[in-house]
Amino acid sequence: MSRAVVLLSGGLDSTTCLSIAIKEGYDVYTLSFDYGQKHSKEISCTKDIIKYYSIKEHKIIKTGNVGGSALTNEDIEVPDYQGLPNIPVTYVPARNIIFLSYAVGYAEVIGAEAIYIGVNAVDYSGYPDCRPEFIEAFQKVVKVGTKGGINGRPIKILAPLMNLSKAEIIKLACENNAPLHLTTSCYKGGDKACGVCDSCTLRLKGFKEAGIVDPVEYV
Amino acid sequence: MSRAVVLLSGGLDSTTCLSIAIKEGYDVYTLSFDYGQKHSKEISCTKDIIKYYSIKEHKIIKTGNVGGSALTNEDIEVPDYQGLPNIPVTYVPARNIIFLSYAVGYAEVIGAEAIYIGVNAVDYSGYPDCRPEFIEAFQKVVKVGTKGGINGRPIKILAPLMNLSKAEIIKLACENNAPLHLTTSCYKGGDKACGVCDSCTLRLKGFKEAGIVDPVEYV
Repeated sequence: MSRAVVLLSGGLDSTTCLSIAIKEGYDVYTLSFDYGQKHSKEISCTKDIIKYYSIKEHKIIKTGNVGGSALTNEDIEVPDYQGLPNIPVTYVPARNIIFLSYAVGYAEVIGAEAIYIGVNAVDYSGYPDCRPEFIEAFQKVVKVGTKGGINGRPIKILAPLMNLSKAEIIKLACENNAPLHLTTSCYKGGDKACGVCDSCTLRLKGFKEAGIVDPVEYV
Repeated sequence: MSRAVVLLSGGLDSTTCLSIAIKEGYDVYTLSFDYGQKHSKEISCTKDIIKYYSIKEHKIIKTGNVGGSALTNEDIEVPDYQGLPNIPVTYVPARNIIFLSYAVGYAEVIGAEAIYIGVNAVDYSGYPDCRPEFIEAFQKVVKVGTKGGINGRPIKILAPLMNLSKAEIIKLACENNAPLHLTTSCYKGGDKACGVCDSCTLRLKGFKEAGIVDPVEYV
C-alpha cells in the first residue's frame, strides 16, 4: 500500500479529503497543527475523526505562532461573515505554506508518495493560499527543492476539493460516509458553532444547497 | 527604513547575509529555528551575533522535528566529509522550505519587504533546497500564495550568496566586518569544530582559498 499524508484540521473539507484518500486505497498518515489558534476544539475533533477511521499514526505538530490573524491573536476579534472582496482578518500569514512544508518533510521521512490538502477555491474565504495557482507553485517547489523531486519522484500535492462547491463537497462526504458529525468549522470554537462567522456561513449555505441537514449543533 | 527578515543559523553564510542586509540599509529582524538539531551551539551563536549587531528583535521559533536526518536523529551519525554526488544523510527533509515559510509569515506580520537566506550552490553539501531553482520556485509561491503577493507587493526572497564560492563569501564577510569569530559551522556542535564533517571541510577549504585564517577553534 502506498502511503499518503493527509492534512487534517478537524473541519469539513479536510475530513472529506481524508475520506477520499482512504477510498483511493492509501495507507494514511494524518497531520494536524497546533499553531496558536485561540481554541483547541479543532485538535480535539481531529482526535475523534482519526479514532473513527482507526488511523494508526496521527502527528500533531506544535508550530510557532507568527501572529497577525484574528484566528491566533487575542486582540483581533473574529468578525461575522461580511462577503467582502478583500482578504479577511482571519487570514493567517503563510499558514498553508507552513502546513504543506511540514507535510513535505514528514512525507519524505515516511516515504509517502502524496499529500492531501482540503483547500477549495469556490466557496471559500478568499485566502490566496487556497487557490490552484498556489498549489501548482508549491508542487514546483517540491519538484526542485526535495530529495524525491530531484530523484524524479516528487511527492504529489493533491487538492481534490479545489473546484467543488461546498454543496458538492458535502454530498461527496456523505457518499464516502465521512463523519461530518465529528467535524468543526466555526472560527470561534465554542461548544456549539456560532453560525455567523465566515466559515459557519459558508458551511450552512453548503448544507442548504445540498439539501442535507448539518449534524453539528449551532447556538 | 524598510524592514527585512534575515534567516540566521549562526553559521558563516547566514552571518555574512546579515552583514549584507545591514549594509544595504534594512531595518533587520533576525529569525532562527530550534528544529530539533542535536546540539544547541547554533542557537547560542545566533545570540552572540545579534548582540554584536545590536539587533532589536530576534525571534527563535521552535519547530516540530519531522526526523529523517543525521542532524536531528540521535540514531543517525554525522559522517566525515565524503564528497559523494548523492544527497548526504545530513539533509534535513524540507528544512529550507519550512524555514522560508515561517519567514514569509513573519515578514507579512511585521510588514517586511524582503527575506535574506544564506543558501549557496557552489561550495555546498548538495542539498536540493540550496539551489537557484528552489529559490525561484519559492518566490513564485509567495507571489501567488500570500496577501502581499496578490496585492502586487510580494515579499522578495534574496539569496545574495547563491553564486559565490566559499572563499568569496569569506572575503565579503571580512569586507563587511561580519563577526566570523562568533559563527559555528560544524555539524557536530562540540566546543571546538571537528574539522572533518562536510560543513567544516567546506569552511576550511574556503578560508584556505581566501588566504584568511579561520578565527574559530578546531580540535
